[in-house]
Amino acid sequence: MELTFHKYQGTGNDFVMIDDRTEAVDLRNLDLVRKLCDRKFGIGADGLIVIRNHADFDFEMIYFNADGSQSMCGNGARCAVAFSSYLGMINGKTRFLAIDGPHEAVLTGDQVELLMGDVKEISPKANDFFVNTGSPHHIRFVDKAKEYPVFEEGKAIRNDIDYAPGGTNVNFVESVSPDEIFVRTYERGVEDETLSCGTGVTAAALVYGNKQQKSHIKINTPGGKLSVKFNSNPDGTFSKIWLIGPAEQVFSGKINL
Amino acid sequence: MELTFHKYQGTGNDFVMIDDRTEAVDLRNLDLVRKLCDRKFGIGADGLIVIRNHADFDFEMIYFNADGSQSMCGNGARCAVAFSSYLGMINGKTRFLAIDGPHEAVLTGDQVELLMGDVKEISPKANDFFVNTGSPHHIRFVDKAKEYPVFEEGKAIRNDIDYAPGGTNVNFVESVSPDEIFVRTYERGVEDETLSCGTGVTAAALVYGNKQQKSHIKINTPGGKLSVKFNSNPDGTFSKIWLIGPAEQVFSGKINL
Repeated sequence: MELTFHKYQGTGNDFVMIDDRTEAVDLRNLDLVRKLCDRKFGIGADGLIVIRNHADFDFEMIYFNADGSQSMCGNGARCAVAFSSYLGMINGKTRFLAIDGPHEAVLTGDQVELLMGDVKEISPKANDFFVNTGSPHHIRFVDKAKEYPVFEEGKAIRNDIDYAPGGTNVNFVESVSPDEIFVRTYERGVEDETLSCGTGVTAAALVYGNKQQKSHIKINTPGGKLSVKFNSNPDGTFSKIWLIGPAEQVFSGKINL
Repeated sequence: MELTFHKYQGTGNDFVMIDDRTEAVDLRNLDLVRKLCDRKFGIGADGLIVIRNHADFDFEMIYFNADGSQSMCGNGARCAVAFSSYLGMINGKTRFLAIDGPHEAVLTGDQVELLMGDVKEISPKANDFFVNTGSPHHIRFVDKAKEYPVFEEGKAIRNDIDYAPGGTNVNFVESVSPDEIFVRTYERGVEDETLSCGTGVTAAALVYGNKQQKSHIKINTPGGKLSVKFNSNPDGTFSKIWLIGPAEQVFSGKINL
């Protein structure tokens, strides 16, 4: 079987995209997912995204991490929106279905604005913070994020007994200006620092924006620039959270399976 | 400019291959090399191989490491032979030119037998050994290679003052049987353990074969199985060194530059 695919990246998170509107791909075959995402023996990616038709939405995004597990992925969803536009399934604005429910998005040039789920609260954790933006995120403010031992400290916090058994992602955040931060993220599952994490920068922006009383935070990551807009509600919740950034098609190809 | 490419792997070393018989690619553009080899923003590979016509050989293989530097690469050369056969430039047997001079190869199914350059000597290094097989290789025999701290010990030996300023690659070798070894390699340049190293397993096979008085050694690596055949000469040199193993096309694609 010859499979046609496209490769996308969003601020350094990269994804194999498959147009599966004919439903030809067996999604129970997790060996196939792992093979396609393998960087030496397959195409290589952080995750695989399968796009299918859905009766009630513009499209359905089915996301797999490289290890075959399923989750929501902010940068992946931004790439899925760009790919669906490339396929002619959407035009500028879209409503689509992901594993955590419906999402809205707006595409302008190579920029995708993605509506994230509402967030219930920011929890203090000693001198740090914890926020769940679809994925769990520990947030620590540091002075010199570029020189910070992200791998060592991230791994220690990820494995802290407080977060057992699931663990958490960990973001190290440096203040750049009242409305701008630099974020480095240790991702569980990958078990290493990654170039950028969509749900992680969203969590960091909520904590920093809440502190600075700003509703639009610019974010620099090792993989590129993002921004987050949101509403802070009087009851401590957050709504209308938009994750904004580029999504780019890198190459396309065919693989024999 | 749209560039067509093919992706190959040989025991876990992976390469972007370009058929450049029209000489359309600017080989002075090292940013292009680095971009194509980038695993997030490009295609992703250990190296880039450009195949060109040559008046005196079946083809010329121009090899770049992911960082843009040039060298000889045993697994890359095996993949280049498979790709040239796919392109119809050779049929079973070939003589081609690489950076270190002419090479011969024989292709049978997915197996490529590659003639490596002659080796002058095996040098003792305390309890270890050093062999230059086109690239410099330190060889250390260990009991349980699977559990050995390859990254930490490899890095220390690579940076040993004895090997300054160029450094060396480091191979940790476990005896499996009188004619079989398991090899893990720390590669300079990559500055990490890699799945397999063609010149490294060749160096390890010469040292082990010399010790065991065998002229054909089977090698297991984390990326797959290889074997090495050679002649031991009375003056301590080695000739007719053949590196044998699989080379596989993984996928093909197009990228806009």
